[in-house]
Amino acid sequence: MSSNSMPTPRMRVVRESDRGVYDRDTINQILDEGFLCHVGFVADGQPFVIPTSYGRDGDVLYIHGSAASRMLRNLDRGIPVCVTVTLLDGLVLARSVFNHSMNYRSVVILGTATLISNPEEKLAALRALSEHILPGRWNDSRQPNEKELKATSVLRIPIEEFSAKVRVGPPIDDEPDYTFPTWAGVIPLETTVGTPIRDDRCQRELPEYLRDYSRKIK
Amino acid sequence: MSSNSMPTPRMRVVRESDRGVYDRDTINQILDEGFLCHVGFVADGQPFVIPTSYGRDGDVLYIHGSAASRMLRNLDRGIPVCVTVTLLDGLVLARSVFNHSMNYRSVVILGTATLISNPEEKLAALRALSEHILPGRWNDSRQPNEKELKATSVLRIPIEEFSAKVRVGPPIDDEPDYTFPTWAGVIPLETTVGTPIRDDRCQRELPEYLRDYSRKIK
Repeated sequence: MSSNSMPTPRMRVVRESDRGVYDRDTINQILDEGFLCHVGFVADGQPFVIPTSYGRDGDVLYIHGSAASRMLRNLDRGIPVCVTVTLLDGLVLARSVFNHSMNYRSVVILGTATLISNPEEKLAALRALSEHILPGRWNDSRQPNEKELKATSVLRIPIEEFSAKVRVGPPIDDEPDYTFPTWAGVIPLETTVGTPIRDDRCQRELPEYLRDYSRKIK
Repeated sequence: MSSNSMPTPRMRVVRESDRGVYDRDTINQILDEGFLCHVGFVADGQPFVIPTSYGRDGDVLYIHGSAASRMLRNLDRGIPVCVTVTLLDGLVLARSVFNHSMNYRSVVILGTATLISNPEEKLAALRALSEHILPGRWNDSRQPNEKELKATSVLRIPIEEFSAKVRVGPPIDDEPDYTFPTWAGVIPLETTVGTPIRDDRCQRELPEYLRDYSRKIK
């Protein structure tokens, strides 16, 4: 699916379709803000959903194969996957139980995961994974050696068939409920960065890219 | 799987098996702390992973059917699902790229989701969903009426086949890497509650259960 085009039928947001978003910029912003995705795959007819880190390079998503060895064991020339990234922004407290909700932004990508065999692409993908989590960290770490590269599997998933759902704003109640005597509104939720805990065997000062870090994520 | 018993083969933690946890108390603590689960199911051979809220009552997990209508359309006498809850606790910065990790707690439940038809069980399940997110809120909201109950689908998933993975603590590097000149340690991450935003059409003071709220979750 190209940017802003019509979603494929299986990708169309079915429930609360007014919350459906299909443009690539929105999807990329959500992907770039998340730390973890949940990757779904099927093994012996059973769905599995595994949390793992990821990186993005343009229209390609990379995930660590090591985090999904069950998936890799079932991988031949590619395996159908669903990758979902969810950012929870708040609890939405309506007057009625029925209209309670959450503010969130989520992306669902359907695609085929393929194993990267080219060593240069694998290295670039690992760099994308690292820079996604913490920009600047890759160049400040001991780089992977050949043995480590061989021990690491990386999967490539094209970001082609996707949709997002976004809910923002206050609760929406049925008109007669607005007189119901309860507090109503939004409880914001945020992922916050705590004080870095230096390893006992480390003597170094906190680097610049970590001092800035709390400003870079929501 | 009963408490502390051996995991079923398909439930056994394959990667980093030292992080595998199978006791029910740990699983329940993780489930009770999370806001969202990611539910995986298969439709036309394609896996889907959908974020949704959930509630727990003893050894049963409840999810809103409305959040997964694609699943419901494929539901007959029960559909195989995987429900995963992940709590991200920190970024683990090692000296080598290869040993970077995350501190997290995750639960994976495999099971069969069935639609609840009994109205009393449905009401109890919705209450469990509500109290899971915000204890005290159910009694302070306008209760569901018959029409709303009919419009809501709730699925029941027994918590029988499950495992958890938990990683805590500092980075673990290869011994020769400890002299590598970089900062190493843990960046803690936390879900924090912001200042409640009262709805424009609400005049009420913040109730007690919301004033306490930031203390109740990690």
